[in-house]
Amino acid sequence: MTTGPTYEPLSVDTLTRRLADVAALAEHVGPDTKTWQVEEIGDGNLNLVFRVTGPNGQAVVKQALPYVRLVGDSWPLPLYRAFFEYHALTRQAARDPGSVPKVYHFDEAQALIVMEFLAPHVILRRKLIAGEYVDTLAECLGTFCARTAFRGSALSMTREDRKADVALFAGNVEIPAITEALVFTDPYYDAELNSHTAGLQPVIATLRGDVALKVKVQQLLQRFVSNTETMVHGDLHSGSIMSTETDSRVIDPEFVQYGPMGFDIGMLCANFLMAYFSQPAHRQDDLTAYQDWVLGVITDLCQTFEAEFRHLWQTERTGILYPAAVFEDQGHDSTLACDAVLADIWRDAWAFCGIEMHRRCLSLAHNADFEDIADTTLRAALEARNLMMGAALIHAADTGLDAQAVCAMAREFNGKDIL
Amino acid sequence: MTTGPTYEPLSVDTLTRRLADVAALAEHVGPDTKTWQVEEIGDGNLNLVFRVTGPNGQAVVKQALPYVRLVGDSWPLPLYRAFFEYHALTRQAARDPGSVPKVYHFDEAQALIVMEFLAPHVILRRKLIAGEYVDTLAECLGTFCARTAFRGSALSMTREDRKADVALFAGNVEIPAITEALVFTDPYYDAELNSHTAGLQPVIATLRGDVALKVKVQQLLQRFVSNTETMVHGDLHSGSIMSTETDSRVIDPEFVQYGPMGFDIGMLCANFLMAYFSQPAHRQDDLTAYQDWVLGVITDLCQTFEAEFRHLWQTERTGILYPAAVFEDQGHDSTLACDAVLADIWRDAWAFCGIEMHRRCLSLAHNADFEDIADTTLRAALEARNLMMGAALIHAADTGLDAQAVCAMAREFNGKDIL
Repeated sequence: MTTGPTYEPLSVDTLTRRLADVAALAEHVGPDTKTWQVEEIGDGNLNLVFRVTGPNGQAVVKQALPYVRLVGDSWPLPLYRAFFEYHALTRQAARDPGSVPKVYHFDEAQALIVMEFLAPHVILRRKLIAGEYVDTLAECLGTFCARTAFRGSALSMTREDRKADVALFAGNVEIPAITEALVFTDPYYDAELNSHTAGLQPVIATLRGDVALKVKVQQLLQRFVSNTETMVHGDLHSGSIMSTETDSRVIDPEFVQYGPMGFDIGMLCANFLMAYFSQPAHRQDDLTAYQDWVLGVITDLCQTFEAEFRHLWQTERTGILYPAAVFEDQGHDSTLACDAVLADIWRDAWAFCGIEMHRRCLSLAHNADFEDIADTTLRAALEARNLMMGAALIHAADTGLDAQAVCAMAREFNGKDIL
Repeated sequence: MTTGPTYEPLSVDTLTRRLADVAALAEHVGPDTKTWQVEEIGDGNLNLVFRVTGPNGQAVVKQALPYVRLVGDSWPLPLYRAFFEYHALTRQAARDPGSVPKVYHFDEAQALIVMEFLAPHVILRRKLIAGEYVDTLAECLGTFCARTAFRGSALSMTREDRKADVALFAGNVEIPAITEALVFTDPYYDAELNSHTAGLQPVIATLRGDVALKVKVQQLLQRFVSNTETMVHGDLHSGSIMSTETDSRVIDPEFVQYGPMGFDIGMLCANFLMAYFSQPAHRQDDLTAYQDWVLGVITDLCQTFEAEFRHLWQTERTGILYPAAVFEDQGHDSTLACDAVLADIWRDAWAFCGIEMHRRCLSLAHNADFEDIADTTLRAALEARNLMMGAALIHAADTGLDAQAVCAMAREFNGKDIL
């Protein structure tokens, strides 16, 4: 291949020349590079993303930039995130086949990954804002969360493999650092990069005045940085999922780290709850039906997660934890143990969920569900419901909440005038 | 130096020749190697330990063997443990100066460490069996546990330094694996290497029949392998401490890993409780006074730990967790947060304590406190108290136990006829 060892960002003009010798790309797009059409399609915050089209098909070329694209070169960010994304994608593909784009080629020096172009998939967040339904969404994502949580943990892996991966992913420092700051810390003080909709000041004052809440959030940060239970995606929101009417795939795992088993599913539920709370600004006629569907996704997602996790517990518990020698071989059912592990996962998940609901309205990187609402008075009213429910979730997370209770709580907050 | 790159175990006959060129050894022992006297002094389970004496003084040469010394070459064990011991000793020395032997020299290929000879220190366990008092014991050890817990954690370290150390110590696989098996798993089923005093069968049946207990123990194993809160010593029992009448030092950190902040102090308390329960076999006249002193060590140890931890919280909270921006800078005391962190530490510690009390009577590597009791009927009776209190601790660990309550519980079990 012609890409040299010195990193250089690709452009629409240079991509074909520079990647002409990448056999895996030619294979998926077409052997004659003169037929390649290159478009920049990136709309994310961090990277360059190109689509290459040719007679054989399409492929995505994703390349890391040495800074945060959203902010510019004043915020440098290491290129090694492509390395971690590559290693995350290969592990996710092995643990939940078909759940992530296929990797065709990885070039560490150029920080680039050539991978499957997903078509006709679009970003799930756009579909949720547009009021579109996605069949099997809860099943795809619940299975993904359960399989990656279980199969990346000491419930499944050998101690050697798991410790090697804990060491590998501990090299990802600056990317998880963004989460540590933007998600867990910035919302709870007057951080430089914060922004919020006008009118939310009283709610923000309530949150920052709630010392017990801030203690709980920091306890969750402690768990996020210390608890290496499994390899988490690390940024599993509705912008990291691409869906058709019937299929969903998970993308963009550069925030990968070893973390708590409840992290991904908690973040995901938060994004569905924010979709729910934002709906009154996006539609009128089918509002109730669509909001009901979104809450149904949450309950089905959690139910699928539990069912798949329990299935793996019974069939793939090959790690050092909760060994059969201590339970089944002595005639003791290990269901009590699985119940305890799941209870801890949900306790973490609902607290992470509440925290994510705060950060998307208060620190950097808001989500389009709310941000697309032009009427800021309405936006503030809906965000206020979301923020106060986030606080309620954080406070109640260790009381044995389940998805039904969370959805009931959402319906209650959905009717409240908070401001 | 004359030690070559190929590992070879030292012997009393070869040590002087092979280490003649180690300047740091000559400096502490004497420049003329003809004056060196070499003795093998190792009584541990894993390593070769020599004392080298000369006109300038003494030094210890500790060398790892490629197998478990206690069992023989049928149980291979990697030489890299010397590497991890060296890195643990340097970090402990920095975090609690004077708490561990000074390292003079490290040779990775030969898996050997030349270090300070502690005199007139003897192994603490022997002093406890002999009924000797050690002044400042609780203060030395409580300070050591608090400082290493705090200063090795994300409460203190930068994220870069902590993640680098998490990755480094994740390389220590086989040594922590011994703890995972012998401490957390083997006691709770009929493992091959188990042994126990005759007469304990009914107690063992009770423990193994208690499914809720086994679930809790495995949850603690999950925390032990997944929760990388701080760099723990990993094997902090009274055989890993050397004391004079007024000074105590911590040795042998080859079980080092990143683990829960409550692990070391919990293991330590277990060893004092076992010293307590075994005393009726070791003395008569001053039994009550000595047992009272041992329980006093536990309460003082825990009090010192708490006081030092709270002091470091106020003065050295430089990590990313519980930042001043979220608490003090908003006029909010962070004491509630420190209380919550300590509550989690004690919840873990008392459970680890109970588990350690089980393993020392049921799996491999019993402790001399009980093992030295020739009268096996008496031994079984005392061990039964210890085992049942261990179970009570595991069950009650999440109810907010403190050291006073634990000592009261110990006095109660000390009067019980269990068999």
